[in-house]
Amino acid sequence: MSDGHVPVNFSDPRNYSKVLKSDVKEALFPDDPFRQFRHPSKLQQFKNGLSYFIPMVEWFPNYTLSLFKFDLLSGITIASLAIPQGISYAKLGNIPPIVGLYSSFIPPLVYAIFGSSKNLAVGTLAACSLLIAQTIEEKVPLEQNPTLFLNLVFTTAFITGVFQAALGILRLGLLVDFLSHSTITGFKFGTSTIIILQQMKGFLGYVHFTSKTDVVSVIGAIIRNWKEWRWESTVLGLVFLAFLQAAHYVRQKKPNLFWVSAIAPIITVLVGCAIAYFAKGERHGIAIVGHLQKGLNPISIHNLNFDPKYLPATLRAGIITGIIALTEGIAVGRTFAILKNQQIDGNKEMIAYGFMNIIGSFFSCYLTTGPFSKTAVNFNAGCKTQMSNVVQAICLMLTLLFLAPIFSYTPLVSLSAIITSAMMGLLRYEEVHHLFKVDKGDFIIFLAAFFGVIFVSMDYGLMMSVGLAVVRALLYVARPTSCKLGAIPNSNLHRDVEQYPDTVTIPGIMVIQMGSPIYFATCTYLRERILRFIREEQEVTAGNDIEHVILDLSGVTAIDMSGIGALEELLKSLQVNSVKITLVNPRIDIMEKMQRSKFIDKIGKESVFLSVEEAIESCQFSLSTSKSKSNDEHSNPNTV
Amino acid sequence: MSDGHVPVNFSDPRNYSKVLKSDVKEALFPDDPFRQFRHPSKLQQFKNGLSYFIPMVEWFPNYTLSLFKFDLLSGITIASLAIPQGISYAKLGNIPPIVGLYSSFIPPLVYAIFGSSKNLAVGTLAACSLLIAQTIEEKVPLEQNPTLFLNLVFTTAFITGVFQAALGILRLGLLVDFLSHSTITGFKFGTSTIIILQQMKGFLGYVHFTSKTDVVSVIGAIIRNWKEWRWESTVLGLVFLAFLQAAHYVRQKKPNLFWVSAIAPIITVLVGCAIAYFAKGERHGIAIVGHLQKGLNPISIHNLNFDPKYLPATLRAGIITGIIALTEGIAVGRTFAILKNQQIDGNKEMIAYGFMNIIGSFFSCYLTTGPFSKTAVNFNAGCKTQMSNVVQAICLMLTLLFLAPIFSYTPLVSLSAIITSAMMGLLRYEEVHHLFKVDKGDFIIFLAAFFGVIFVSMDYGLMMSVGLAVVRALLYVARPTSCKLGAIPNSNLHRDVEQYPDTVTIPGIMVIQMGSPIYFATCTYLRERILRFIREEQEVTAGNDIEHVILDLSGVTAIDMSGIGALEELLKSLQVNSVKITLVNPRIDIMEKMQRSKFIDKIGKESVFLSVEEAIESCQFSLSTSKSKSNDEHSNPNTV
Repeated sequence: MSDGHVPVNFSDPRNYSKVLKSDVKEALFPDDPFRQFRHPSKLQQFKNGLSYFIPMVEWFPNYTLSLFKFDLLSGITIASLAIPQGISYAKLGNIPPIVGLYSSFIPPLVYAIFGSSKNLAVGTLAACSLLIAQTIEEKVPLEQNPTLFLNLVFTTAFITGVFQAALGILRLGLLVDFLSHSTITGFKFGTSTIIILQQMKGFLGYVHFTSKTDVVSVIGAIIRNWKEWRWESTVLGLVFLAFLQAAHYVRQKKPNLFWVSAIAPIITVLVGCAIAYFAKGERHGIAIVGHLQKGLNPISIHNLNFDPKYLPATLRAGIITGIIALTEGIAVGRTFAILKNQQIDGNKEMIAYGFMNIIGSFFSCYLTTGPFSKTAVNFNAGCKTQMSNVVQAICLMLTLLFLAPIFSYTPLVSLSAIITSAMMGLLRYEEVHHLFKVDKGDFIIFLAAFFGVIFVSMDYGLMMSVGLAVVRALLYVARPTSCKLGAIPNSNLHRDVEQYPDTVTIPGIMVIQMGSPIYFATCTYLRERILRFIREEQEVTAGNDIEHVILDLSGVTAIDMSGIGALEELLKSLQVNSVKITLVNPRIDIMEKMQRSKFIDKIGKESVFLSVEEAIESCQFSLSTSKSKSNDEHSNPNTV
Repeated sequence: MSDGHVPVNFSDPRNYSKVLKSDVKEALFPDDPFRQFRHPSKLQQFKNGLSYFIPMVEWFPNYTLSLFKFDLLSGITIASLAIPQGISYAKLGNIPPIVGLYSSFIPPLVYAIFGSSKNLAVGTLAACSLLIAQTIEEKVPLEQNPTLFLNLVFTTAFITGVFQAALGILRLGLLVDFLSHSTITGFKFGTSTIIILQQMKGFLGYVHFTSKTDVVSVIGAIIRNWKEWRWESTVLGLVFLAFLQAAHYVRQKKPNLFWVSAIAPIITVLVGCAIAYFAKGERHGIAIVGHLQKGLNPISIHNLNFDPKYLPATLRAGIITGIIALTEGIAVGRTFAILKNQQIDGNKEMIAYGFMNIIGSFFSCYLTTGPFSKTAVNFNAGCKTQMSNVVQAICLMLTLLFLAPIFSYTPLVSLSAIITSAMMGLLRYEEVHHLFKVDKGDFIIFLAAFFGVIFVSMDYGLMMSVGLAVVRALLYVARPTSCKLGAIPNSNLHRDVEQYPDTVTIPGIMVIQMGSPIYFATCTYLRERILRFIREEQEVTAGNDIEHVILDLSGVTAIDMSGIGALEELLKSLQVNSVKITLVNPRIDIMEKMQRSKFIDKIGKESVFLSVEEAIESCQFSLSTSKSKSNDEHSNPNTV
């Protein structure tokens, strides 16, 4: 062995409880949430703990008037957005529009106490509103029993809240990780498409429409009811839409004019109200929202309905929308936190969302989260803390107490224009093009979500896409890429021969970098793959047999009993052909299992190295001695 | 940058169709089955193809008399085992014993033509016999309609065959990979336990018993029916069992006396028959098998029953036993092939098993595979080719034609002794101890299968264990181990600081080896984990801020859009803290996606290196220049 040989660590395996503890920590507590409790003073521990669970305790004592100036402005801005969006999205889900306003009053207050994001603006989501309505209507048609329908909507919000809080408390945030970027993009594209199509009802001034959401039913309904078309609605709608899109365009061109696009929806609503009121729009085919009761949120805790007959529907709607809301909210919180160099704790946020929805469901609110568009407005308006949500809540409270009747005159077509404009903002084609260009697999997952949503239903599309993504993940895992390594000229590095075609290999020695993990679902494949590498090599260099196989294990992060079994079988079948195996750099978990199972003893400690270079050196040495021996045997009679 | 700098390969990404082709090949054709067709001559291609699908074409033309001598001896030996095992296992599954004999006649012939293992001995499996009976009896109680029951057993074999052949043809052998070693061990332990308990019926001479298989029901039945106990059965049974175990012991001590244990079962049966015939055993409480019809397998193709009423049961039994039979057969074939340095092709074997069971089901046979014990006897008896199965079939044919009535007198207690002895051979405690010692996770998966089988049902235990194994696999994948690297003194190697505590790190530079794969389910975790590494480091070395994070990507085999998104977020949040990211050795797939998504442009090509050493050198250079700059700024007034 050469001089610079670095000893491999063969020390005894760690205690199992220690390994288990570290595994559990990585699985459930990767963010180390208990670090606040590691403080010598008990009082400080309590304070840290309190501010962990109730972030308000941390930021409020240091709150200043100068901060409030910023939060006031941004709070008013998002409130001006909350009113039209609240009404529109509720209407989209066949929920009374006033409930949309209620949902922008209580939940922002709760979030201000428990939430850790300083930029998030709480509000409702269009896609979730539609999904809830769609799922519950399957069980309870709205016309049959509007009160029951509404109670089930509140129950869904309660279930969502419990589910979200449970995920946060049980630290199962990793479930949310299974909604991949491509699934979300596909879901957004699909839902935006069907929501825009649904707005045709408003734009065309139809009275009758379909409650189904798939493209075929909606286009069918558009064609079937053409006799109800009122041109007045269409004209007004197109004017509003043009105005909103123009405001959107201004914002894109001059980002500091963001407020133009932020207040455009409320202007649309107010102008619409004025037209409806003064021009008696209703007589000219401009349908309006209708009666909005003055007053704050009525208590709805006694209306929650857990009847086993409806529970499957509320559970399904609650859990699916809960996951979508979490995915949206946490991603949004994180995006904006990064811009200000702040930290967001996903599990903590889940608990905050959970509380927000549970308490909301007690006060006639439905599902809320932190939508992207509203949060972006909050951020651009210069919000500093969660106080902007408090300001939003107070504005909504004043609206509910005094201004609600004004909004009764909101024309439905204004809402359609607002929704359409918002949804068009979500259709970002360049993102799809990017997916297509970079990763075809992700593009297929996107398509599954998109087509599933527009042709079948929203939850079906989501599940189909997640299913595909999981199958793909299992394939990643079932077929970990291994590759043959060669030496890069003029260096001591060994890299993939496919990636670096200039590399040179040494006859008789084959270096293979193993894919990870080596476990029951992959071990057969990996063993076969190595045998194939050897076979292919021997076909090319006929006659020049391989005597050493060096397995680089640096990248292998996990192995199980089946994996070790496969390595043992490999060892046996190579031994029969007198091929020797040398291992390079097994990592700590792998080394421990190999030691416990005595595999290291079978292969010999002298055949384990820390680097490919050392392993090759040792193999070359053994090659040269064996060659010189055989040379000696053959050539002795002639030479001497 | 230093002299010896090795250029990173930034060439254009490969064509997508090329990547897809290689991915599909790795997923479905890792063994490169088409290599036989890559031959210049068409005739040779045809010959190669034929011998690929019908291995007999390859070995039979070169078959010699001297080989036949070996196969004749081993064929007779396994036939002597096939008779008692065939009768016993059929009886175990409430299938007429003669069907057990039929199943050792046709299937071995089929396997001899299509099978590629030269050591495998075809026969029935105890666990599968019981599982089939259990599943079908739930739908059709045996007493109600024995003919229908039997037809459904044949139908199950047909479904198994189609399923196995389909897996082989569609190259979905990877499904079988999901039965891990621990699951199989647990399943074997569980089934052996309940099968041994079931034999209490024979040992105690009971007439009534339970058809359920779980431990509680069986022990209940043993206690409930104690009045039916016949001591004569018990005495005879214990004598037989002692004899069989003694034979087994002899074989373990002197492996070349394997034939003692191989012929012990048939001796047990013949002695039992003699006792029953001459001593009129039936009058003394020794129940016998009863009438066995002379003659070859009746055709049963017209009896296959695909009535939708029974299809769920036959499908379930067929698919589950199909997977178990494949797992056993392929593992057994491979184990013995390795000892003789032969190759077994899993997908090809699946097709052979499929044909064997389909054709078997046409001729009154039920599920067969290559059981371990019988194959071991075949191997030890010196079999050379598949011809030993032909010899076995001929022996069985002669038995069916002339000797069947003799075996009518076989006492049931002989069968119980044979089954018990066989099952005791499967209870290998040292294997469980090994699992416990090496990998606690695998041990839990073992326990799930074991307890599931003995307390609930065989298929439930199997599914629970596979489910646990898949969850664990997903966790492996959701939490890929990353680690901090340090330099090993007196070398240029960088290794895990936890595994090699002597390593030294450079202040201001952090090297992290990334776990693999980086994709939607892992990317959030990996990003958080890196941020935690940095936070922990900065807590320890207060004040000495990290300026460079080097990510070693050598071990990363896959990335998706979400993964790239997470790296981009990481880049952003580190940039805010003016920490620079340097990448080391991205592999070909990763590099291509990073280039397509322009991530490489964001990070800068000058920040990608082929080795950790080079990356550190470059970071140190930039550290020293930035330090000397800041030193200059601070110290200028004093020094000059």
